Amino acid sequence: MDITRDDIDAAARRIAGDVRRTPLLRIAGRELGVDCAELWLKLEQLQVSGSFKARGMFNRMRADVVPAAGVVIASGGNAGIAVAYAARALGVRAEVFVPASSSEAKRARLAQLGAVVTVRGASYADALAASLDRQATTGALLMHAYDQREVVAGAGTLAAEVEADAGVPDRALVSVGGGGLIAGVCAWFAGRSRIEALEPALAPTLAAALGAGCPVDVDVAGIAADSLGARRIGDIAWSLARRHVAASHLLADDAIRAAQLALWHGLRLAVEPAAALPLAALATRAVVPRPDEKVLLVICGANVDPASLAG
Amino acid sequence: MDITRDDIDAAARRIAGDVRRTPLLRIAGRELGVDCAELWLKLEQLQVSGSFKARGMFNRMRADVVPAAGVVIASGGNAGIAVAYAARALGVRAEVFVPASSSEAKRARLAQLGAVVTVRGASYADALAASLDRQATTGALLMHAYDQREVVAGAGTLAAEVEADAGVPDRALVSVGGGGLIAGVCAWFAGRSRIEALEPALAPTLAAALGAGCPVDVDVAGIAADSLGARRIGDIAWSLARRHVAASHLLADDAIRAAQLALWHGLRLAVEPAAALPLAALATRAVVPRPDEKVLLVICGANVDPASLAG
Repeated sequence: MDITRDDIDAAARRIAGDVRRTPLLRIAGRELGVDCAELWLKLEQLQVSGSFKARGMFNRMRADVVPAAGVVIASGGNAGIAVAYAARALGVRAEVFVPASSSEAKRARLAQLGAVVTVRGASYADALAASLDRQATTGALLMHAYDQREVVAGAGTLAAEVEADAGVPDRALVSVGGGGLIAGVCAWFAGRSRIEALEPALAPTLAAALGAGCPVDVDVAGIAADSLGARRIGDIAWSLARRHVAASHLLADDAIRAAQLALWHGLRLAVEPAAALPLAALATRAVVPRPDEKVLLVICGANVDPASLAG
Repeated sequence: MDITRDDIDAAARRIAGDVRRTPLLRIAGRELGVDCAELWLKLEQLQVSGSFKARGMFNRMRADVVPAAGVVIASGGNAGIAVAYAARALGVRAEVFVPASSSEAKRARLAQLGAVVTVRGASYADALAASLDRQATTGALLMHAYDQREVVAGAGTLAAEVEADAGVPDRALVSVGGGGLIAGVCAWFAGRSRIEALEPALAPTLAAALGAGCPVDVDVAGIAADSLGARRIGDIAWSLARRHVAASHLLADDAIRAAQLALWHGLRLAVEPAAALPLAALATRAVVPRPDEKVLLVICGANVDPASLAG
């Protein structure tokens, strides 16, 4: 189950022409009211498709022969958008199964990217079951939002870029939903950086797994559920996180919202709530770096209605 | 009147601890529908105070001894915000004169940054006259929005950063109002890059000067007047632009607006209209690069209401 740096290097070579090498914004900690030497913001909200998910989805499609039936995924969020984006770029068919609870805007975005969108069932679990049935019928390549090796290795490429640009951070702050992102970061920085997981208190997949000793289902709700609303941490993520995550922190919705607004007002970064958890952890002092530290904040996505940042 | 690269290097050393080294986003031209090898977007909308103006204002305050009376400027826009920001950071007093036509939101922002805001007269010219009177009375350091050597040299530091990060672009696309930004870019890249000026058709200060053979007053209006609404190009800018600007292009408001929305939808960059002129020039084919070119787009500011990007 281990993902190595070689896997991530291979992913980076595969997707180099498909994704953006996103910039790293380096600022003094005091600029955001944090008493540490440097904050490194990996601006992954500028990634194609609007989130880091594109890295993993391109990597999975590039690593395999995509059958004529194309690819299939169950997702009403960033993973679905990334699959639709990548499929269009590579000229393959994409089917995306979404639950009835998904927003009309997200479905329209998926359709605009050329995906065949099927609404099935009330919950994500229903949409997932429908996507598995469909895959069995058509033989399409099954894509998972986070729990596949190529998807995790793809996410890890952003950590490799950070190291190439600025070195290894003393601490890396990463939001967790299904865990694909933190798994990739763990795989790259393992043993070389203090990696901390940040979760909405209302969607605590990793905290629940740490408590139970294994992945378990949780209820999910709150401001960041759209991106971090997986019901259970992935097996690959669990395998890496249990060994390499130094601490896990739960954050309240109001702290996440305040950090999202601070990123806009202080830095002019328009990001979704999920991308604001690293700053929320610093602002609430859930995480307190030493004064000499260089701290990485992964700014993971920008699928936000800009009107929500006004005022 | 010449500004040299030595002046810009000196400015960069002076302001290194005050401003952000903004990131450069490098993407393939096709990502924005342009047939050229690379687009380099200098993300100066992430600069402190929300625009490149902070570079020049810090440089002027750092280059001189600021008297006890502080600094004074007439500006209802980004220059005033940058002066207020820099004055607060350096612990000096700032007086900002704005005309009655300035927005309530801008005045509130200035006051929030600690500036003493005085509303005087109907137009910018009235506010300017009032600021000069005030300066004569108090002995404060007079700041100009674009037509001072230190302000131009400060703006040039962003071009120096581009070269350090990626080399000299084949072509540099720069928005023009009073001309401080393009003057700094000219001073740095002079003779090494094809520099093109972009202006709103409704605020054509450089085009009018090129037509008349010297700076002349123009009427200003339109979507970008808030940032690019100087009535006349600065003398320093004229001196540099007449020698180093290869071409000047006028852009319609609807093209500027379309490019502003494209920067949001395609790249998740939330920018003000003035920052969208470089992309507007490419999208309308006012500027047509060769397929092998690397083209710099200076994304100059982010003082935008995010609600205006919704939908």
